[in-house]
Amino acid sequence: MTSVKIVGATGYGGLGIIEILLRHPEFKITALAASQEIGKPISAVWPYLEGYCDLPILSAGSPEFAAAEAEAVVSATPDGVGQLLAGRELAAGRRFLDYSGDFRFNSPALYAKYAGRIAGDPVHKTPELLPGAVYGLSELHRDEIRGARLVGNPGCFAVSCLLGLAPAIRHGLIRPEGIICDCKSGVSGAGKKPVPAHHFPERYGSMNAYRLSGHQHVMEIERELSLLAGRDIRVAFTPQVVPMCRGIMSCLYGGLSDGVGQKKLLAAYRDFYAKDVFVLVKDASRPVATADVRGGNRCLLTVAADERTGVFRVVSHIDNLVKGQAGSAAQNLNLMFGYPEDLGLDGPPQHP
Amino acid sequence: MTSVKIVGATGYGGLGIIEILLRHPEFKITALAASQEIGKPISAVWPYLEGYCDLPILSAGSPEFAAAEAEAVVSATPDGVGQLLAGRELAAGRRFLDYSGDFRFNSPALYAKYAGRIAGDPVHKTPELLPGAVYGLSELHRDEIRGARLVGNPGCFAVSCLLGLAPAIRHGLIRPEGIICDCKSGVSGAGKKPVPAHHFPERYGSMNAYRLSGHQHVMEIERELSLLAGRDIRVAFTPQVVPMCRGIMSCLYGGLSDGVGQKKLLAAYRDFYAKDVFVLVKDASRPVATADVRGGNRCLLTVAADERTGVFRVVSHIDNLVKGQAGSAAQNLNLMFGYPEDLGLDGPPQHP
Amino acid sequence: MTSVKIVGATGYGGLGIIEILLRHPEFKITALAASQEIGKPISAVWPYLEGYCDLPILSAGSPEFAAAEAEAVVSATPDGVGQLLAGRELAAGRRFLDYSGDFRFNSPALYAKYAGRIAGDPVHKTPELLPGAVYGLSELHRDEIRGARLVGNPGCFAVSCLLGLAPAIRHGLIRPEGIICDCKSGVSGAGKKPVPAHHFPERYGSMNAYRLSGHQHVMEIERELSLLAGRDIRVAFTPQVVPMCRGIMSCLYGGLSDGVGQKKLLAAYRDFYAKDVFVLVKDASRPVATADVRGGNRCLLTVAADERTGVFRVVSHIDNLVKGQAGSAAQNLNLMFGYPEDLGLDGPPQHP
Amino acid sequence: MTSVKIVGATGYGGLGIIEILLRHPEFKITALAASQEIGKPISAVWPYLEGYCDLPILSAGSPEFAAAEAEAVVSATPDGVGQLLAGRELAAGRRFLDYSGDFRFNSPALYAKYAGRIAGDPVHKTPELLPGAVYGLSELHRDEIRGARLVGNPGCFAVSCLLGLAPAIRHGLIRPEGIICDCKSGVSGAGKKPVPAHHFPERYGSMNAYRLSGHQHVMEIERELSLLAGRDIRVAFTPQVVPMCRGIMSCLYGGLSDGVGQKKLLAAYRDFYAKDVFVLVKDASRPVATADVRGGNRCLLTVAADERTGVFRVVSHIDNLVKGQAGSAAQNLNLMFGYPEDLGLDGPPQHP
Repeated sequence: MTSVKIVGATGYGGLGIIEILLRHPEFKITALAASQEIGKPISAVWPYLEGYCDLPILSAGSPEFAAAEAEAVVSATPDGVGQLLAGRELAAGRRFLDYSGDFRFNSPALYAKYAGRIAGDPVHKTPELLPGAVYGLSELHRDEIRGARLVGNPGCFAVSCLLGLAPAIRHGLIRPEGIICDCKSGVSGAGKKPVPAHHFPERYGSMNAYRLSGHQHVMEIERELSLLAGRDIRVAFTPQVVPMCRGIMSCLYGGLSDGVGQKKLLAAYRDFYAKDVFVLVKDASRPVATADVRGGNRCLLTVAADERTGVFRVVSHIDNLVKGQAGSAAQNLNLMFGYPEDLGLDGPPQHP
Repeated sequence: MTSVKIVGATGYGGLGIIEILLRHPEFKITALAASQEIGKPISAVWPYLEGYCDLPILSAGSPEFAAAEAEAVVSATPDGVGQLLAGRELAAGRRFLDYSGDFRFNSPALYAKYAGRIAGDPVHKTPELLPGAVYGLSELHRDEIRGARLVGNPGCFAVSCLLGLAPAIRHGLIRPEGIICDCKSGVSGAGKKPVPAHHFPERYGSMNAYRLSGHQHVMEIERELSLLAGRDIRVAFTPQVVPMCRGIMSCLYGGLSDGVGQKKLLAAYRDFYAKDVFVLVKDASRPVATADVRGGNRCLLTVAADERTGVFRVVSHIDNLVKGQAGSAAQNLNLMFGYPEDLGLDGPPQHP
Repeated sequence: MTSVKIVGATGYGGLGIIEILLRHPEFKITALAASQEIGKPISAVWPYLEGYCDLPILSAGSPEFAAAEAEAVVSATPDGVGQLLAGRELAAGRRFLDYSGDFRFNSPALYAKYAGRIAGDPVHKTPELLPGAVYGLSELHRDEIRGARLVGNPGCFAVSCLLGLAPAIRHGLIRPEGIICDCKSGVSGAGKKPVPAHHFPERYGSMNAYRLSGHQHVMEIERELSLLAGRDIRVAFTPQVVPMCRGIMSCLYGGLSDGVGQKKLLAAYRDFYAKDVFVLVKDASRPVATADVRGGNRCLLTVAADERTGVFRVVSHIDNLVKGQAGSAAQNLNLMFGYPEDLGLDGPPQHP
Repeated sequence: MTSVKIVGATGYGGLGIIEILLRHPEFKITALAASQEIGKPISAVWPYLEGYCDLPILSAGSPEFAAAEAEAVVSATPDGVGQLLAGRELAAGRRFLDYSGDFRFNSPALYAKYAGRIAGDPVHKTPELLPGAVYGLSELHRDEIRGARLVGNPGCFAVSCLLGLAPAIRHGLIRPEGIICDCKSGVSGAGKKPVPAHHFPERYGSMNAYRLSGHQHVMEIERELSLLAGRDIRVAFTPQVVPMCRGIMSCLYGGLSDGVGQKKLLAAYRDFYAKDVFVLVKDASRPVATADVRGGNRCLLTVAADERTGVFRVVSHIDNLVKGQAGSAAQNLNLMFGYPEDLGLDGPPQHP
């Protein structure tokens, strides 16, 4: 059994990893921290957890939380928090996985650029840790994650886009210019904090695009794609919210490279993900919906090049709270501690 | 490991038990049957199951299904189907659990009355089996279920009403006349078949009451309450549908017996369910919503007598597809085969 | 043309009356006030109004708003606001219609009791106005509203319950004890302010009962029913929220008086509302849903006594924002100014 | 007053035009026809219309419907029906507006190609009428519609795409290759017929792309764009369904022409639509959602070129049942009969 502490336990990302680890045969949750409701059992804040997890909510800065036994820390926290905690926890010999953008980049300069997009402080608090951080998208960085002590879990939109574009970019199947990520997300991606745009009567029966001037996830998408391509790649990214709770569907477009058609594309995708248990590649003959991945850690890719127009087209489906967040985190923890990659993630979700 | 065959595998009730048994450490699914899509793997019909369960769909009447090894059969079928199968399977030494009204009553006469309410054939096809059938609401019939070979799983509305009313009726805390069950259900309770009333644009943003002339579940509610009271009990039952997928919230009303107030009522409920792991009793100081039981096998009861008017009031919350159907079925199977009652049902659901 | 000023213009209740008056042939909106976003055109706050209504938002206390020409003022404001404005406006010769509980009661004592239920200040600021206030449920107080200068618009739950119970109470068709109002509302009834319980991911797929200790609308329900009965009437009231935007469905229960059955009940309801253009009486043979009244000013009553149990049962359907609020307000304004009661309210809503 | 007969009256498109015409000061509905429920008043099929429209449903082929007085016929019917009726009605001196693809193309060859995409009969039944048919997108064909006797109302997706792309194409602001229409629709666009994919429990909480091999609306989009460009234009089109009732949001992409940036683009769009009362052009500084057009006849365009990547980006929002169907039809009827283009379409919709 590997013991895990969770910071940011009361947000949707915290709940997600709690739910998975409670069912996981090899991980044990030893302490929870959050910035509010301190002192209460988490089941007083989230009654559905009563009897499953009744640990008290501690302050992340408390001696009690610091001293709690753990081999790993999951920081399911907003941008800027993990970088304040990682140093201490790493020094105590723990492995550290952070949900935010704090450890997705390996240089202070890139982080500063990222922070600018979210109007955050551009100065990273522990820049010395950045070079050692690993980007936690298992399908692209499996080997580095295995040995990693510090992992930056990917953004939900980024997971859907990267898994959908990686094979095409890696093998030059699409042109490097004019790549488009048209991404639709359920509302849970915005977190648990009530805001006017997600007040039920406003959101019910309404969808919209937002941050057209530049969502922050575009940075990690471009960084990873550029690594795969061996050259600079830019993408136009249109984040959208639709009135459902869970799920991301990203329609990914580009120009097919000369001589590349549906058949070649499909074969390349199937080959690329041949050993990835969580990525399924389909063609348009099989109807796919976000319901097919809801509640589970899978990414379902529909490869459907539009040969008539020369447009590359892949539709990527994930559950934003699982493969897009807590599921990827658990997958990373499995890799970090030498467990089978899908341990605790291999059961079917519920339908409908 | 105990092997189980499932009939009606492609409906919501069949999917529910498949999902639970796939995660269950002691049950193994050996064969699936349904009336349509025969020959296909179930994951071709329900793609979310791909890789989790790819068994072929057989005809329930086929030699292959009849011969499939199994110690238990779950008949997740509509009214009238289980009674055609139970005899054969029982004769083969298997235990049989049926989801419909086929085995909820112990006499042909009561069944005929039930069948009349659903415009079905009043003549039961295997009346000789009825006396041995056990009503599968574990909290009320635990001991009989333990030894049972034939179990009639309860109706979803009935589960919510019976758990909400049983302690009050058993102890005479409410008057026997004028009991009201005002029951709201999510749409999944109506099954997977598309109908105009549940076509998305019609159902979205709309709720309604239906079958005001008499829903069939009232019969098992009255039978069980009468058994508990030791006298004839009738209830007025108003089934309603609200635009959500899963969940039943039943508001149960009656007249408080003389001298009964909130305190006494609450104590009686807590005592009645002291040993029932799936029933939680709360008072109105704790906010409760169907989301608290969604995806899980719990029943959450809010006991909130209205002393000002003398009105008894209990709000009962379940997931109609879990505690209202497949979860109760798994709980019954656990009891029938001597496993801990909550085995495979003890993990937290997902939120939100 | 009759000119109208609106306070609380940016809430759902304010928008509702704006929408109706913009389409109304005889009313003209001359000024808007709200407590926030002052100075902006209302269409900057609510873009869907662009081009339809671009009036600036004023402060209700500003000289500009006070001086704006108007024969009527609609105060679409929360409890406690209207009582601060009514005196001034009435003194200026305007008629005043208030949405809150401020003018639903005719004595300081009753108001104090009401205020206690919402944890408000029990001391009314203009008690001298209370005796002259008229309760604005047109179907019950049509003649008084015609001459009224000060109208307290009814609560949305109260509208649904009163219209559903009035005939039975008036004619003694149900027993005076044990009356139950089981009321389900869409989320818009809670207003536009974001709160955790109505944050989209929390509300989606979840329903709950609330304020079981006593919702404030029960007071006006009981007052009106008592007036109709000529004796004291109490009701047990269970407010509930379901995940949809608009609509209230109230299931109303009681004990049928001796000799009263479905036929007699239905006839009494049809007779009672024979001249009310907005109330339709149906029996259970006609399927009814809240979608049938969504967007319109109607109340649809399904009369379905349960003779088997002696339980009186009426299901009342309204749109909480129309007949439950702005539509009733417009109906009242029509009466107050001598226009046909349904003027501007006689078009069909949209479906689906 | 102009009299109108409606065929296909009981579908969502029929209801839409009924609702608008009932509120319209200059049009009067004289007869309704449909293929089912013949003989019943439409209000028996759609109870929300009771009292607003109680006309009987006739058979379109009946002498009674043929003889009903009318200056115009709206055929709110599926593909293949209008072409059987148009000849007769035109011969009787009536103007004919059809909702389907029957009269969107001016040659049998183009129609045959269209019909192939929907697996329909490629042989048009009244090819002689095709040359005189006018494509009913008022913003692009206003003058021709004014004199038209036969109008093919545009497809809902096509409306959103064409309004969003027309200025850019007309003025060569984007490159002619690689144009992408990523279109999300609410479920009402699929019509009233219950199907598994839109059964409430399946659709709730799930979105998907469909017809990736080629949706039929692409043909009219390409035809119109080609006319505007004066050269052949092709688009890649990805239709998607999201779990809401009304609304289309189309994200339109292409490559910005050399020297074209946000400023120039925005100015061109504002200029192009300067006189179009139903099209509003915004930049990304103003949050826009489909709720802003829900229930109304507007198209809201967000122009947000991504200069960093050189990607042209316009987000087009309409209500698929209004501007996407019945609203455009009413706008066309206004033009055809010389009424102000927005007569009966100039009121605010309801929110939320």
